[in-house]
Amino acid sequence: MNFLEERIMKDGVVKPGNVLKVDSFLNHQMDISLMEEIGKEFKRRFADKNITKVMTIEASGIGIAAFAAKEFGVPMVFAKKSKSINIAGDVYVAEVESFTHQNKNQVVVSKQFLGPDDHLLIIDDFLANGCALLGLISIADAAGATVEGLGIVIEKGFQFGGRVIRNLGYQLESLAIVDAMDPETGSITFREQADSVR
Amino acid sequence: MNFLEERIMKDGVVKPGNVLKVDSFLNHQMDISLMEEIGKEFKRRFADKNITKVMTIEASGIGIAAFAAKEFGVPMVFAKKSKSINIAGDVYVAEVESFTHQNKNQVVVSKQFLGPDDHLLIIDDFLANGCALLGLISIADAAGATVEGLGIVIEKGFQFGGRVIRNLGYQLESLAIVDAMDPETGSITFREQADSVR
Repeated sequence: MNFLEERIMKDGVVKPGNVLKVDSFLNHQMDISLMEEIGKEFKRRFADKNITKVMTIEASGIGIAAFAAKEFGVPMVFAKKSKSINIAGDVYVAEVESFTHQNKNQVVVSKQFLGPDDHLLIIDDFLANGCALLGLISIADAAGATVEGLGIVIEKGFQFGGRVIRNLGYQLESLAIVDAMDPETGSITFREQADSVR
Repeated sequence: MNFLEERIMKDGVVKPGNVLKVDSFLNHQMDISLMEEIGKEFKRRFADKNITKVMTIEASGIGIAAFAAKEFGVPMVFAKKSKSINIAGDVYVAEVESFTHQNKNQVVVSKQFLGPDDHLLIIDDFLANGCALLGLISIADAAGATVEGLGIVIEKGFQFGGRVIRNLGYQLESLAIVDAMDPETGSITFREQADSVR
């Protein structure tokens, strides 16, 4: 098991409905040392890429993306949830459905902060059905930017988001891939990954 | 002028309606070196406090609070916006009105992550009418936690939030206090602060 899988085993809680609660260290309370370690691991996995900017989506991706951006020495930009029906012409827009909240949001990135010269690392905390990542990829495409890779902290391997993104040809690195969870026993099965840090 | 005031003069944009746009470096795109510098400055201003946790509110406070927490070597917890009318009993709730978005949100913090032993530094990017800070203070009070201080990146000195919080007896440190802005000329007047870094 790598450092993240170990932490999930220690502090993650499996709930009915395929919910994995990691809010004591990742997406409500944040363990900053872990964030730094995650940032360094993303840097290691995308070391050969010439990243110019890290992109994520609010809210829980922000902390992780910030520490990844620190490692690459580049700015971070986060897509903002927007309730406005009329979006001005100076933003890129994508529609994103949330698995957790079961609602749809428009997310926007100002055109000022993304362009054809950008080589992006897209970061998020969870990958389930892939909607958030597809939204961010479509925003990158609209800007003419290059998506160099996508880094996820926890992928739910039993949902199809990971397959969708990898089938599109992107380098997707998930620090932990959960293939199965049992709310009765609390057991979590991780997918074996060749590249994972021990 | 301190480092932040200089950056605001360089990259901030004054818009009609008392709007100061700093989204190129603070709350949409984030300059990570600046975040680190802000974190260190909060550490300097609250050096005598025994902080056990940094608290903020999603979304744009998260990055700043994370780097402040790094300096103090403590976890960070962020209040989450909640659309649910029925909130379970395991969270502290506050109602927060947003100046920017002109709407009300319930924000919640899990009871698990705040308690009587906590000595909190509360962090946010902007202070205008003070609603967000008052919400976070009320959550801290409900948990029996001690608010050791509040750190703000940009305070709008011409709104009453700062006066409200200081009148309650809290140590409130704003790295820049904007006393006046002129959208016609783009000029920004900062309040002189005895403690500001040169």
